[in-house]
Amino acid sequence: MSAAFEKCRNVLVTGANRGLGLQIVESFVTGSFSPGKIIATARNPDGATELQNLAVKHSNIHIIQLDVVSQESIEKAAVEVDEIVQEDGLNCLINNAGINVVANFETVTAEKMLENFHTNSVAPLMITKALLPMLKRAAAKETGMGIHRAAVINMSSLLGSVELNWGERANNFKWYPYRTSKSALNMVTRCMAVDLEEDGILCMAIHPGWVRTNMGGQEAPLSTEESIVSVLNVIGGLSEKDHGSFLHYTGEPLPW
Amino acid sequence: MSAAFEKCRNVLVTGANRGLGLQIVESFVTGSFSPGKIIATARNPDGATELQNLAVKHSNIHIIQLDVVSQESIEKAAVEVDEIVQEDGLNCLINNAGINVVANFETVTAEKMLENFHTNSVAPLMITKALLPMLKRAAAKETGMGIHRAAVINMSSLLGSVELNWGERANNFKWYPYRTSKSALNMVTRCMAVDLEEDGILCMAIHPGWVRTNMGGQEAPLSTEESIVSVLNVIGGLSEKDHGSFLHYTGEPLPW
Ligand SMILES: NC(=O)c1ccc[n+]([C@@H]2O[C@H](COP(=O)([O-])OP(=O)(O)OC[C@H]3O[C@@H](n4cnc5c(N)ncnc54)[C@H](OP(=O)(O)O)[C@@H]3O)[C@@H](O)[C@H]2O)c1
Ligand SMILES: NC(=O)c1ccc[n+]([C@@H]2O[C@H](COP(=O)([O-])OP(=O)(O)OC[C@H]3O[C@@H](n4cnc5c(N)ncnc54)[C@H](OP(=O)(O)O)[C@@H]3O)[C@@H](O)[C@H]2O)c1
Repeated sequence: MSAAFEKCRNVLVTGANRGLGLQIVESFVTGSFSPGKIIATARNPDGATELQNLAVKHSNIHIIQLDVVSQESIEKAAVEVDEIVQEDGLNCLINNAGINVVANFETVTAEKMLENFHTNSVAPLMITKALLPMLKRAAAKETGMGIHRAAVINMSSLLGSVELNWGERANNFKWYPYRTSKSALNMVTRCMAVDLEEDGILCMAIHPGWVRTNMGGQEAPLSTEESIVSVLNVIGGLSEKDHGSFLHYTGEPLPW
Repeated sequence: MSAAFEKCRNVLVTGANRGLGLQIVESFVTGSFSPGKIIATARNPDGATELQNLAVKHSNIHIIQLDVVSQESIEKAAVEVDEIVQEDGLNCLINNAGINVVANFETVTAEKMLENFHTNSVAPLMITKALLPMLKRAAAKETGMGIHRAAVINMSSLLGSVELNWGERANNFKWYPYRTSKSALNMVTRCMAVDLEEDGILCMAIHPGWVRTNMGGQEAPLSTEESIVSVLNVIGGLSEKDHGSFLHYTGEPLPW
């Protein structure tokens, strides 16, 4: 794992009870280097058996409750995060929680569009706002840009690329709510990159690849481990040049 | 005005009571060629005095009520449109109605994001779905692509370009709900372009320029007439090559 992780004291991952979020926590604790504290959030911590088992073995995992579409829950979580990270602040926020409200042109409704947008595009913004004091605190201790200082990583998707939604590729996944929510998330990412730059907080969007999770399905080519090893490698290597970017899990830039 | 307008029998414009929408109706009826029927929709037709005055003078203007965020209103409007266009169908749908829920990083809330997204990104999709039978009917009568056949035009904005939201430019308008809604609209446009292609219905997004309206403000460089003359010129010239595109009011392509 990248040297930048050695200076990354505190990380927070949303939707850490299963899928890619759980794998991020697992890869952190089983990898060659683990951040000081890993704050793993879950909508329903009591039902997060695998995560709870991991936390029993690794005392640097802190599980807190967070329903990303509830402002009350976000504000409550922010208070808890503050207590956990103390004066070190938060070095890396990974907005990973997401949903795919599957609907095509025929079946899409306003409600489906709004639901997917709220979870995938609005929640990362509201969570970043709530955790900003802690991100700033970490950023104030270092120079340069990257996870050694402070970074906001948004789990986006290649399906959020408007450019790539064309030709052969477009005919595979005609998911209006999901695609729209991820292109909106890309705009949120870029807006936040503009605003958080003066505090030295890096902000970017990453596509984790097509991965075998509940969302990705069993025909996906990548295991969660393959995806996350690569994602963490990219995250660990982020610097000024990646601020405001949209990267593939292999590190290549993606078109908006 | 382009020759394509001569074959464009029926047009619908949303938000036609003021600003760019009203100007589109005005430019149609005062231009060298006017579509057979201009369906001008307004959230509140009774208060649309200027539009009502225009309709008194031009019998081809049909005013109907449409609140773009109400599914009930959309479905009611679709029935009325069907009765107006009859077997000719609808050649051109201009999704113009839009709002700017101004909010920056500090002031943005989930509610503001959702409200702007609903009006600017979801409504054009739901309206297009409801009017699809009429668009298809018009498309079935012609070949090629353009407003002589059937087209969906979404009023987007340069502020919806994720690519251009960087550097100097980004610091002018830090409007999270608006920018996000327009990049989401661009994805909706592209998704619809993929799906409506087999019916021969062109679908694209256009930036009308920065225009002096309630939304644009009085410091904007363009009058509504200057903007719309140019916009209608672009719309009139649309063909296959513009399907799924995002164009500046001068006709140049914009990055997503
Ligand atoms: N898998 C892929 O191929 C793929 C490809 C591109 C991008 N992505 C993105 O990667 C991220 C993770 O996806 P995944 O494949 O791991 O999906 P997943 O297996 O379906 O897991 C989704 C996670 O998000 C959480 N979540 C959803 N809504 C939430 C809410 N309101 N509050 C708190 N947590 C919530 C879920 O928690 P619950 O258990 O409580 O529901 C779960 O932990 C998503 O943003 C997804 O869009 C995935
Ligand atoms: N002006 C610019 O510089 C500029 C630049 C780029 C893009 N645009 C886009 O161009 C379009 C027109 O903008 P404009 O400058 O003409 O704005 P405007 O003067 O503020 O007019 C907005 C129009 O949208 C209508 N509208 C809003 N919400 C509605 C709803 N729920 N149902 C029905 N109608 C609704 C308004 O009707 P009410 O009177 O009932 O509110 C009004 O007719 C918008 O999509 C805007 O984003 C404008």
